Amino acid sequence: MPDFAEPLARLIQEVKRLPGIGQKSAQRIAFHLLRAQRDDVERLAHAMLDVKDKLGLCAICNNISDTDVCLYCSSNEREPGTICVVEEPHNILPIETTRTYFGTYHVLHGSISPLRGVGPEQLRIKSLVDRIAQGGVQEIILATNPTVEGEATAVYLSRLLKPLGVTVTRIAMGIPVGSDLEFADEVTMSKSLENRRAL
Amino acid sequence: MPDFAEPLARLIQEVKRLPGIGQKSAQRIAFHLLRAQRDDVERLAHAMLDVKDKLGLCAICNNISDTDVCLYCSSNEREPGTICVVEEPHNILPIETTRTYFGTYHVLHGSISPLRGVGPEQLRIKSLVDRIAQGGVQEIILATNPTVEGEATAVYLSRLLKPLGVTVTRIAMGIPVGSDLEFADEVTMSKSLENRRAL
Repeated sequence: MPDFAEPLARLIQEVKRLPGIGQKSAQRIAFHLLRAQRDDVERLAHAMLDVKDKLGLCAICNNISDTDVCLYCSSNEREPGTICVVEEPHNILPIETTRTYFGTYHVLHGSISPLRGVGPEQLRIKSLVDRIAQGGVQEIILATNPTVEGEATAVYLSRLLKPLGVTVTRIAMGIPVGSDLEFADEVTMSKSLENRRAL
Repeated sequence: MPDFAEPLARLIQEVKRLPGIGQKSAQRIAFHLLRAQRDDVERLAHAMLDVKDKLGLCAICNNISDTDVCLYCSSNEREPGTICVVEEPHNILPIETTRTYFGTYHVLHGSISPLRGVGPEQLRIKSLVDRIAQGGVQEIILATNPTVEGEATAVYLSRLLKPLGVTVTRIAMGIPVGSDLEFADEVTMSKSLENRRAL
């Protein structure tokens, strides 16, 4: 590597630690920041520190929030009787963009993965059981990812929660809308066949 | 757009202003920073502000530097008689990585572009002429980009500098090494033919 001035080399190193950013992108971003107005760089730097200082987890659903109880849990327009369970806070976003879900959420902050040494006790499952125990919950929608870990977590939660007298459902897996059968992998295709519905 | 907590939404907005970062990447980076250790986020934020506070331009060649004179201009191992002219500081990097160039540089900070209203007077050309006037310069290598603007700048500089008694050369344009003729665009292919060399 050719030599950059020390502050620039250090910035490139730090930017490279961000997800999806390689050496070239890091250089491009670093040179951009170097040319940018100091005010703009300051705003970015402060925004970064603010998320660390001002955000915490919702006391009810563990979603990221700048208030004690998050905007979904505190809203009058959301049905508290339906809880959609997701692995991570950012998994809420694709569900919200559908504009068709009006229940609340529960964020596990991970998925069961024996390989990575993550068991059910490391996930925020107890608080979910507590929410159900308080009554008023009709349905739990398991929206963990369609991966081995997400599936395992869904199976575990389903066995744990059904005895509590709630309906437990799992989001559908199948061919993406607008796609072509040609491009579907075998697992998705077989899931799609398995979950066929009468017309 | 669904609602994020305010500090998170603000961070996503700020990250999106970086080059090559769209909405999804910005969200991914923002959530990464949210989960990261505060120390790591602080180091990144400080590195960003440091490049603004600690770096300036080399008094000789206008390269970015944390010292008055940059590492190339102050090195005993570089030939001051050869000056490679580039548009931007980051254009030095690909030349240095070849490890075959041992002269110095001159950074124009832009290229002539009538469309964007950039004329020769906005570029750092006068200091280049001054360097040549001080004597000891044998060759000027024009390494501006192989674009319309870079070409126009090279032609302008060539006409301006040749009368000063220096050799003025232009980097070669042609088929990239390891590529296939099949993938070359017509302009590159014709440049490649035009610049053919006797074997």
